[in-house]
Amino acid sequence: MLDFCLVGAGFIGPLHGANVAAHPGARLAWVVDLNVAAARSLAHKYGARASGALDEALADPRVRAVIICTPPRTHAAIIEAAARAGKAIFCEKPVDLDMAKVDACAKVLAQTKVPFFVGFNRRFDPTHRALHDAIRAGEIGRPEMLILSSRDPEISPPDVVATTPYGIFYDTMIHDFDMLRFLLDDEPIEIFARTACMIDEKENPHRDPDTAMVQLRMSSGALVHVNSSFRAAYGYDQRIEAFGEKGMVVSTNHHPTSLERHGKDGIRRDPLLYFFIDRYEQSYKRELDAFIGALETATPPAIGLDDGRRALAIAEAGVRSAKTGMPVALSY
Amino acid sequence: MLDFCLVGAGFIGPLHGANVAAHPGARLAWVVDLNVAAARSLAHKYGARASGALDEALADPRVRAVIICTPPRTHAAIIEAAARAGKAIFCEKPVDLDMAKVDACAKVLAQTKVPFFVGFNRRFDPTHRALHDAIRAGEIGRPEMLILSSRDPEISPPDVVATTPYGIFYDTMIHDFDMLRFLLDDEPIEIFARTACMIDEKENPHRDPDTAMVQLRMSSGALVHVNSSFRAAYGYDQRIEAFGEKGMVVSTNHHPTSLERHGKDGIRRDPLLYFFIDRYEQSYKRELDAFIGALETATPPAIGLDDGRRALAIAEAGVRSAKTGMPVALSY
Amino acid sequence: MLDFCLVGAGFIGPLHGANVAAHPGARLAWVVDLNVAAARSLAHKYGARASGALDEALADPRVRAVIICTPPRTHAAIIEAAARAGKAIFCEKPVDLDMAKVDACAKVLAQTKVPFFVGFNRRFDPTHRALHDAIRAGEIGRPEMLILSSRDPEISPPDVVATTPYGIFYDTMIHDFDMLRFLLDDEPIEIFARTACMIDEKENPHRDPDTAMVQLRMSSGALVHVNSSFRAAYGYDQRIEAFGEKGMVVSTNHHPTSLERHGKDGIRRDPLLYFFIDRYEQSYKRELDAFIGALETATPPAIGLDDGRRALAIAEAGVRSAKTGMPVALSY
Amino acid sequence: MLDFCLVGAGFIGPLHGANVAAHPGARLAWVVDLNVAAARSLAHKYGARASGALDEALADPRVRAVIICTPPRTHAAIIEAAARAGKAIFCEKPVDLDMAKVDACAKVLAQTKVPFFVGFNRRFDPTHRALHDAIRAGEIGRPEMLILSSRDPEISPPDVVATTPYGIFYDTMIHDFDMLRFLLDDEPIEIFARTACMIDEKENPHRDPDTAMVQLRMSSGALVHVNSSFRAAYGYDQRIEAFGEKGMVVSTNHHPTSLERHGKDGIRRDPLLYFFIDRYEQSYKRELDAFIGALETATPPAIGLDDGRRALAIAEAGVRSAKTGMPVALSY
Repeated sequence: MLDFCLVGAGFIGPLHGANVAAHPGARLAWVVDLNVAAARSLAHKYGARASGALDEALADPRVRAVIICTPPRTHAAIIEAAARAGKAIFCEKPVDLDMAKVDACAKVLAQTKVPFFVGFNRRFDPTHRALHDAIRAGEIGRPEMLILSSRDPEISPPDVVATTPYGIFYDTMIHDFDMLRFLLDDEPIEIFARTACMIDEKENPHRDPDTAMVQLRMSSGALVHVNSSFRAAYGYDQRIEAFGEKGMVVSTNHHPTSLERHGKDGIRRDPLLYFFIDRYEQSYKRELDAFIGALETATPPAIGLDDGRRALAIAEAGVRSAKTGMPVALSY
Repeated sequence: MLDFCLVGAGFIGPLHGANVAAHPGARLAWVVDLNVAAARSLAHKYGARASGALDEALADPRVRAVIICTPPRTHAAIIEAAARAGKAIFCEKPVDLDMAKVDACAKVLAQTKVPFFVGFNRRFDPTHRALHDAIRAGEIGRPEMLILSSRDPEISPPDVVATTPYGIFYDTMIHDFDMLRFLLDDEPIEIFARTACMIDEKENPHRDPDTAMVQLRMSSGALVHVNSSFRAAYGYDQRIEAFGEKGMVVSTNHHPTSLERHGKDGIRRDPLLYFFIDRYEQSYKRELDAFIGALETATPPAIGLDDGRRALAIAEAGVRSAKTGMPVALSY
Repeated sequence: MLDFCLVGAGFIGPLHGANVAAHPGARLAWVVDLNVAAARSLAHKYGARASGALDEALADPRVRAVIICTPPRTHAAIIEAAARAGKAIFCEKPVDLDMAKVDACAKVLAQTKVPFFVGFNRRFDPTHRALHDAIRAGEIGRPEMLILSSRDPEISPPDVVATTPYGIFYDTMIHDFDMLRFLLDDEPIEIFARTACMIDEKENPHRDPDTAMVQLRMSSGALVHVNSSFRAAYGYDQRIEAFGEKGMVVSTNHHPTSLERHGKDGIRRDPLLYFFIDRYEQSYKRELDAFIGALETATPPAIGLDDGRRALAIAEAGVRSAKTGMPVALSY
Repeated sequence: MLDFCLVGAGFIGPLHGANVAAHPGARLAWVVDLNVAAARSLAHKYGARASGALDEALADPRVRAVIICTPPRTHAAIIEAAARAGKAIFCEKPVDLDMAKVDACAKVLAQTKVPFFVGFNRRFDPTHRALHDAIRAGEIGRPEMLILSSRDPEISPPDVVATTPYGIFYDTMIHDFDMLRFLLDDEPIEIFARTACMIDEKENPHRDPDTAMVQLRMSSGALVHVNSSFRAAYGYDQRIEAFGEKGMVVSTNHHPTSLERHGKDGIRRDPLLYFFIDRYEQSYKRELDAFIGALETATPPAIGLDDGRRALAIAEAGVRSAKTGMPVALSY
């Protein structure tokens, strides 16, 4: 039974907390949040201890692992503290949005050798994973084209958008940049990006790109397309299509129910699941299970800091391309 | 090149006429209709001759085959005349609605030995046929249950309904009764039927059954369900599902286009094809092709008078069951 | 926070136990099983107490509700004991297979007035429920035909089959008998049933019916078809189709993933979910939520003993029809 | 009744000939081909006259329209001859692959003022057209992204590939370049293209690009992606997806039948239609109908020489981008 310390009781924290509590191999021991009341409320539900000070929890020798659910710009400091305390680390994506800080984390992790896992949860979605496994099993032969559609139902509030310009790259498509590496088991060597502001000024006052198309070339020669939007009227649109010499595999969308309504106007199904936490409910459970499994068997986690670093590098190059209108070569 | 005489220039006649004209092995030579103007108009389009008198056309020795597209109650007399003239016969379903007349036809056909084909067109629909072939190829192993849904988009006008009480059996489900024999390659030994009048009095003033459910047992033990309605708001609903020890094959519906519309209210496809002639466009071509192929190779047509007779016998038993509320045993 | 006593730590017990533990309004306080080791193992996981004696748990005044997960033939005695102890009761379906015992339970419940809920979980499946709500909202107008397909992936072991002859009625279609009442908000007045033994002797040595078709007539005149099999090679097949004057709503099947595989042989999706607990995972959570909600608001549970009684009465009449080959009138 | 002269009795000629013959408003009067035997054989079937000399047919004053089905590089000369003879012209796509010759044609057409129609048949496919109409009707609001997948089942034989390098642009994606203009009612201002040779040397000995991804920007700001391959193992893959502020419309693929096969390995549908003539059967009929309708009403055809010219210009720019690796600005 592994004791976990959850850092960050807001937004995605309660989800990870519940998953830890329900996992047969784990126990939620601590909840840490600057907002101590929030930490307490969450901790109480699962019989955990609460604190406003990370150090207090890290000092508990029974704590074996830390789950970091705080805002991105705080990740690096918490990673370093947890690593120095010898705790295994599960960090919500991204590692950080500043490459220098990511590199600094890398050094600390290399010194401390603690297991590190970055939560690119889509790798653990059952359908995306089945697509991955089908490619790896050779079902489509050599992969030749990959097409990822990644559309959010609505744009974030202006104040959130203001904190991360080009968030469509750093926040949304960074998942796709991770997935293309994961699915093709290969690295991109070129990226070409174009963006647009399609959402009206009231909802997107900063005129930050809300629509993007990206084309990449992999070192194998495979071609990749990613499209993204911050406003899909019909729900959270998440599709991946891999085409190869022997066929195609497609990860299609998920609906709240499987009901079909037949009437004069045609046949209607539900809109897509709207909320990313509903769509990826399974993947959040499975990524935690993968992390715990790695700790239990003392094997390296399936996805590490270098994966987080590379996805960020692709996002940065994409933004450069979008700004210059020219393809950008990628190297590491 | 086979010369055809088309009898009946109304309703379904022009469809069969166009199919004959377009077939590489056939020519439309005569169109016969009591309404000579209708015969002429159709004949003109394809360079055929027109007549109001069947005898005139039957006397033409170049005519090798007759297609009968007149109202059902006239079929028997035309069949006998054509048979006595030595012409091959393609007869729209049903052979007749009066079993005695069907039996009389059978005798004449037995004497004259002319090829006879009854147009149960659904046997020739590509999807239904693929289902048939899958069963015959053993894909589902031994067939155990068969479920046929057969729903018209709207009820016929009251004057048409008045001419054939229990028309839902004689007109619509007779297709299903033929299909269950064809698909299972077996005969039913029992039928149980229940009907209802669901359409309001304005549209169904004679209170003729407009809704029916039928359950049959085959000599093999397989169980069959048929449901039918004269008012499917979403179009012409035609489905068949065959279940067996190794799986299931399903013939699903057809749509005018393959467009999907995704919006706030969900994902919408077209309603079903509405008109039976659109839905079964291919089957009308293919049944004619099967008939012509049989004549060209001098082999017996794929479906003969006995098939028409048996489908009618099942319909009659079904009506008896619906009237008595008791299961009816079937024998031949 | 409601304290629950779970009775029966086998088969379905751990599922209900986990759902109680995860529910924000409930706590698993006791696990009771004659097999005390099983009770203890389950109790330990959730910090509950364990016992081999029901009385011990019922004596705990903090216990507000009992969940009965023992074999059907033990239900009645436990219901009566729990009712007399004043506990609210959630009983796995069926109430009992013996109508006399069901009636005896009814009397005790009438005296003690404890809330009683029978776990016909399918009423709480999100897709089936959306179908129900669409009917109730008038989307298809007056319902005219209902078609339920209810097929298990495999037959139970011979020793289980031996204990409940005609189990396809009592165990499987009893769900459909409940659903048709729930969906149509109406009672059947006639049932006609036919069965077959299609599974080979090795797997079905007792030659208990493994395949069934049932046709019912509702007091409204609506017609209902149910088909069932104990061996669906492609998974757990659970479909409902409701047809009415304005259209049709269909609850279609569920798949483990939404992957599509396109190759030379066509386009392939996953087989259906195989295990009923996976297919109805949500409905088990939601029925518990409905039960707890009723207790919290002191309103009668959504489904009570009379519902269990009526579903059993339909099953009994169905068996009578299958044995006699005649339709059976239903009355209460 | 319009008399047509068909030029070119090979490949696509018989298809257009049959469509003309079956059209209620048209008659096939002449078939012209250097291979006089081929012309005769086709002409005979429809009672038309045959010739090896175009002038002979053009001299027939009853001939009102010419359908050009010869190889692309012969189109320009035939267009000019037909235009000078005052005949309306239906020309298979492309107008020509040499822009200078297209411009020369444009001059002759401007002088002679004969109606000219270029056969970009996909505009007339019922599903693609329904997508077009949905966009125009405002169903998705302002179009923001367009994604076209255009994959042939197999590469042409090496000798055909040798005659048109970069044929994936000139032969295949030229359809998509026309469709994006048609669907968005807008012009592209930039194109970025990347290609690959994925098919092995035996089938693609000239190493001509067999795989391509293209990204375009429209003058409205909308972003467009096109992907294409010369080898789709699962059939002729033809999809279009238009995304906008209010939703998405998708033109999905077509299958030979609507059969579903459910077995242990999952649920299987047919592979896609394999042959483009089967997939676009309806569009060939409808484009002819549009052309005849324009002549009958003396209105300009729905698609003219300038459309052919612009699609070619986009293809040329795409090839330039693929060769240089840089985005290419488009202007006319």
